[in-house]
Amino acid sequence: MAKIIDPSEVARKFRSELRAQIAELSQPLTLVGFLSTDSAPSRTYAEYTRDACTDVGIRFDLREVDRFQLEDAIEVANADPAVHGIMAYYPIFGVERDRYLKDLVDPGKDVEGLTTHWAHKLYRNERFADAEKTKRAILPCTPLAILKLLTAADCDPAGKKVVVFNRSEVVGRPLARMLANDGAEVVSFDVDGALRFDAAREVETTTTRGEALATADVVITGVPSRNFPLVSARELRAGVVCVNFSTLKNFADDIGEVAGVFVPRVGPMTVTMALRNVLRLFEGYHRRAAS
Amino acid sequence: MAKIIDPSEVARKFRSELRAQIAELSQPLTLVGFLSTDSAPSRTYAEYTRDACTDVGIRFDLREVDRFQLEDAIEVANADPAVHGIMAYYPIFGVERDRYLKDLVDPGKDVEGLTTHWAHKLYRNERFADAEKTKRAILPCTPLAILKLLTAADCDPAGKKVVVFNRSEVVGRPLARMLANDGAEVVSFDVDGALRFDAAREVETTTTRGEALATADVVITGVPSRNFPLVSARELRAGVVCVNFSTLKNFADDIGEVAGVFVPRVGPMTVTMALRNVLRLFEGYHRRAAS
Repeated sequence: MAKIIDPSEVARKFRSELRAQIAELSQPLTLVGFLSTDSAPSRTYAEYTRDACTDVGIRFDLREVDRFQLEDAIEVANADPAVHGIMAYYPIFGVERDRYLKDLVDPGKDVEGLTTHWAHKLYRNERFADAEKTKRAILPCTPLAILKLLTAADCDPAGKKVVVFNRSEVVGRPLARMLANDGAEVVSFDVDGALRFDAAREVETTTTRGEALATADVVITGVPSRNFPLVSARELRAGVVCVNFSTLKNFADDIGEVAGVFVPRVGPMTVTMALRNVLRLFEGYHRRAAS
Repeated sequence: MAKIIDPSEVARKFRSELRAQIAELSQPLTLVGFLSTDSAPSRTYAEYTRDACTDVGIRFDLREVDRFQLEDAIEVANADPAVHGIMAYYPIFGVERDRYLKDLVDPGKDVEGLTTHWAHKLYRNERFADAEKTKRAILPCTPLAILKLLTAADCDPAGKKVVVFNRSEVVGRPLARMLANDGAEVVSFDVDGALRFDAAREVETTTTRGEALATADVVITGVPSRNFPLVSARELRAGVVCVNFSTLKNFADDIGEVAGVFVPRVGPMTVTMALRNVLRLFEGYHRRAAS
């Protein structure tokens, strides 16, 4: 039977390290969250962020702002030296306009790693923000959370064959690139077809789902649709590592019979990585400015 | 009967001015176009750009690049001092990833005004790129083309009531903001409802299409759907200025009976504004560097 990895347990270890590091700082860290919709999941995620911040000793300042005032509010937070991190709860308007808002956040406060600034570094495998390699680049939270969960499962992606179902700009594509940067050979599926990512490139491939799954060492799913045919035991190799980051079930129950490891959800690690990014941004961008 | 404004005729005047200004430069201007899909409209638009460049004396360098190599190709063009302007023919991947590509273009070479850098200035009504007000901000081509066509129709938006059907981030929203920056009161409709833009703000409004059209001085349409109920004479005030930038017909034939001016299409002015932006960027960003 597959070993089940509980992301809350992995998150607990990271949070305990964060708590210790934050306790040693000479000043409090502040994360500002912007809530601009009535969406229940967004409010839930905001409250969840607050709990996680409390847990590690970060001050969380939730600002409920009319969505038409959000642009100005982000600028105020960008300019405020007492704010060390900024996140907003999307979706707010829609893909195109939300993308514009994401890019207004100062990269030095972008705890979600969603700005073009950080995405660009990721896609070029630039791991530092400066030539002296003192400031580590910020990585997007969910892909980073998945990499940390693979580590927790003793799975090093180098040399592995990984299949990812999801190619969004927020999770699936940066995840595929990060895995490939770390030496994996990745096949990425979405409604537009299959792409293969290796260390150097991203190319179209005719590989089918069946072929890709039959040889996969790691399968990662994030398909927010009930029409997705669940990944089942008969499609998989024995010992495969399975990770689901969708809020829906993407794996059939029978995968427990063949998988070596199953990570059924990622959420608690995602918010933990955002908090880790608050600390990393403080170390790279705010500490020196403040001292 | 409405006066018909032919955008080709207006474009001809702009191009003749551009041709004269470009002829006086000490070095040739180069615009690079990136074609990364098999889309027939994209190729047509690329050929159209070439003709327009030839017309005004700009060197057009069309680069056909695999879409997975486009990111690198944009960086090469960004770094090349012999390239003064860059444009790409979208859509290439889809809204989210295309947005990422648009933001990779150096703002100093972004002739389409599509980067977050220029959008941000527009939404804040910052008309210059520098504090000394020597470098004029770049405006997106289609909204700018529409403003110039209004001028050609002797229509100053200041104090006017304008209705815009379309709120895309590429045309409708920047257009509404530009008109409002110039003193118009704008009601913007799209599938998500109506927004009112004035000089200071953008807010939701309960104004209906009927109410907005009945008092409009200017009506601008850009709806790429055959399901859009055509704007008809009985909805409009006498003397209204009507502009259609959709490739589809958005006005009924009978508007000629009530409209003062009708601009049936915008296309030839859009590409002309891109060429104007090449010159403007050269003056602001490249001439000094080169001298």
